Amino acid sequence: MRDHGGNIDHAQEIWGGTNWIDLSTGINRRPWPVPALPARVWTDLPTHAAKSALLKEAARAFASDAPCVALAGAQQGIQLIPRLCAPGYARILTPTYNEHAAALRTEGWQIQEVSALVDLAGADLAVVVNPNNPDGTHHTRQSLLDIARHVGVLVVDESFADPVPEVSLAGLAGNLKTEGNVIVLRSFGKFWGLAGVRLGFAFGDGASIARLSEMAGPWPVAGPALEIGRAALNDCDWQHETVARLAQETVRLDALAARAGWSLIGGTHLFRSYATPDALAARDRLARAQIWSRIFPWSTTWIRLGLPGDVAEWDRLAQALS
Amino acid sequence: MRDHGGNIDHAQEIWGGTNWIDLSTGINRRPWPVPALPARVWTDLPTHAAKSALLKEAARAFASDAPCVALAGAQQGIQLIPRLCAPGYARILTPTYNEHAAALRTEGWQIQEVSALVDLAGADLAVVVNPNNPDGTHHTRQSLLDIARHVGVLVVDESFADPVPEVSLAGLAGNLKTEGNVIVLRSFGKFWGLAGVRLGFAFGDGASIARLSEMAGPWPVAGPALEIGRAALNDCDWQHETVARLAQETVRLDALAARAGWSLIGGTHLFRSYATPDALAARDRLARAQIWSRIFPWSTTWIRLGLPGDVAEWDRLAQALS
Repeated sequence: MRDHGGNIDHAQEIWGGTNWIDLSTGINRRPWPVPALPARVWTDLPTHAAKSALLKEAARAFASDAPCVALAGAQQGIQLIPRLCAPGYARILTPTYNEHAAALRTEGWQIQEVSALVDLAGADLAVVVNPNNPDGTHHTRQSLLDIARHVGVLVVDESFADPVPEVSLAGLAGNLKTEGNVIVLRSFGKFWGLAGVRLGFAFGDGASIARLSEMAGPWPVAGPALEIGRAALNDCDWQHETVARLAQETVRLDALAARAGWSLIGGTHLFRSYATPDALAARDRLARAQIWSRIFPWSTTWIRLGLPGDVAEWDRLAQALS
Repeated sequence: MRDHGGNIDHAQEIWGGTNWIDLSTGINRRPWPVPALPARVWTDLPTHAAKSALLKEAARAFASDAPCVALAGAQQGIQLIPRLCAPGYARILTPTYNEHAAALRTEGWQIQEVSALVDLAGADLAVVVNPNNPDGTHHTRQSLLDIARHVGVLVVDESFADPVPEVSLAGLAGNLKTEGNVIVLRSFGKFWGLAGVRLGFAFGDGASIARLSEMAGPWPVAGPALEIGRAALNDCDWQHETVARLAQETVRLDALAARAGWSLIGGTHLFRSYATPDALAARDRLARAQIWSRIFPWSTTWIRLGLPGDVAEWDRLAQALS
């Protein structure tokens, strides 16, 4: 098991307590409200019709008519993409989410981590997370299209792109054969705050998406996930309100962190990363208030925080940082 | 997409109507009742603790202390097992569930279909579905242990074994290294009637299960599936009552079929297969009553029926067959 946020049971084991606020992930803590579900989503094998209805909403929500497959989270895409072709040389723009390297390595890829977008050039397969986790770097569409011409396949993980559709390549994936092959991953769990549902999407050229779909098998997405995803992606009002709220709240979180003497490294609408004098001490300070945060095995100073949910959570964080 | 039962939307397209009884699968139509679920199963990443709690119940329910991994349905096991070792020569005891051959072929295995258990001998990997779908053949533990000694890996798909624990090898999987390597697959969706949940299990030796777990990734099972699986596997009363009910009802279904002039080929507690003069005509006769059944591309006479659920469903089937 690789190092991840969301390991709240680990925090409970060490610090005790049962009233934790988990800010160790970038999962929205004010989730789309799951309604009562029809019994058939539990009892029946997921149907073609349910899958098609979900894909139709995904096309609208992610503004893409490219071939698309629904998966059990963006994570399933991360695991399957390394098997699309024979393993070769992959480059990953780092620091970033560690599952990409792990999944590629498992499938026999040689991996080089690079720290500038242009250094991806020459790779058989290149990975960019946009906006990036944890440093929040946002790449423009054009900069990605430029680099796509110089790699075999460009994988763009847009797990945190929902509030910034202007950076997304989902609409162009699959139409770029002459300029390089782009596969875009989207997450459902993070922005919609429903990580337990396990739902994500891959957009790309027809052949790649058909192969991902074949590898994922007949029922990769559970019945409840098909139903919830369809309804949530269709709820434009909730999406607009949530983007506006998150934009305000990131400002508020940065202000709280600044008062604690932490400086902003970068972030997205769903998490913020800060430089602290001592990341472990910063995590422990929050953990004593039963607030779980994310630090990284490769940094002694960085700490990442998701956004608190309700007023009580904001109050507790403000107090812990004051 | 391969030929499957459960394609009820296909039936609706051809025959119209919205009040179908889907008997095309072996999924129990009187499912374990899903209770209200805590919000965290939707919002949070599935935790280690939730996974462990589920595996503890699975060990008890399937009477096995062998290494075990929870998967997104037995189907995920079927898809991952062909990747446990380099592809070689596989033999499958047929006729049987078609996903095994498809998954092995996709991963580069050479496949030979055999019609007697002893003919599996010599295979690098052998597949037996026990009890078998669709003909209902039940193999004894001893006969499987005997053949396990003569193959590289014996995969026993026990998707329909819940009512007949006496045939299960789950308790012996992982302890048979000297007698051949056995991997046992269990399904949650069929007996518990919750196919939309996507949950299944693989039992086997430590190395194989660790590798399956690695390939399945950190969150193969959704939060609701972990919670529902744990509670349902723990509900022994429901399981006992359901086995007793199914045993009675298979007798009733066989009697209805006999009156229609169909002869029993075999079956399990969850489905029955019959020989008819003309399978297509038999399916159409039921479809006109909005009852969906399963026929097979390789047979002109076989039809398979799951068991109806409530009284109204039994009445409609009785009328359609009278």
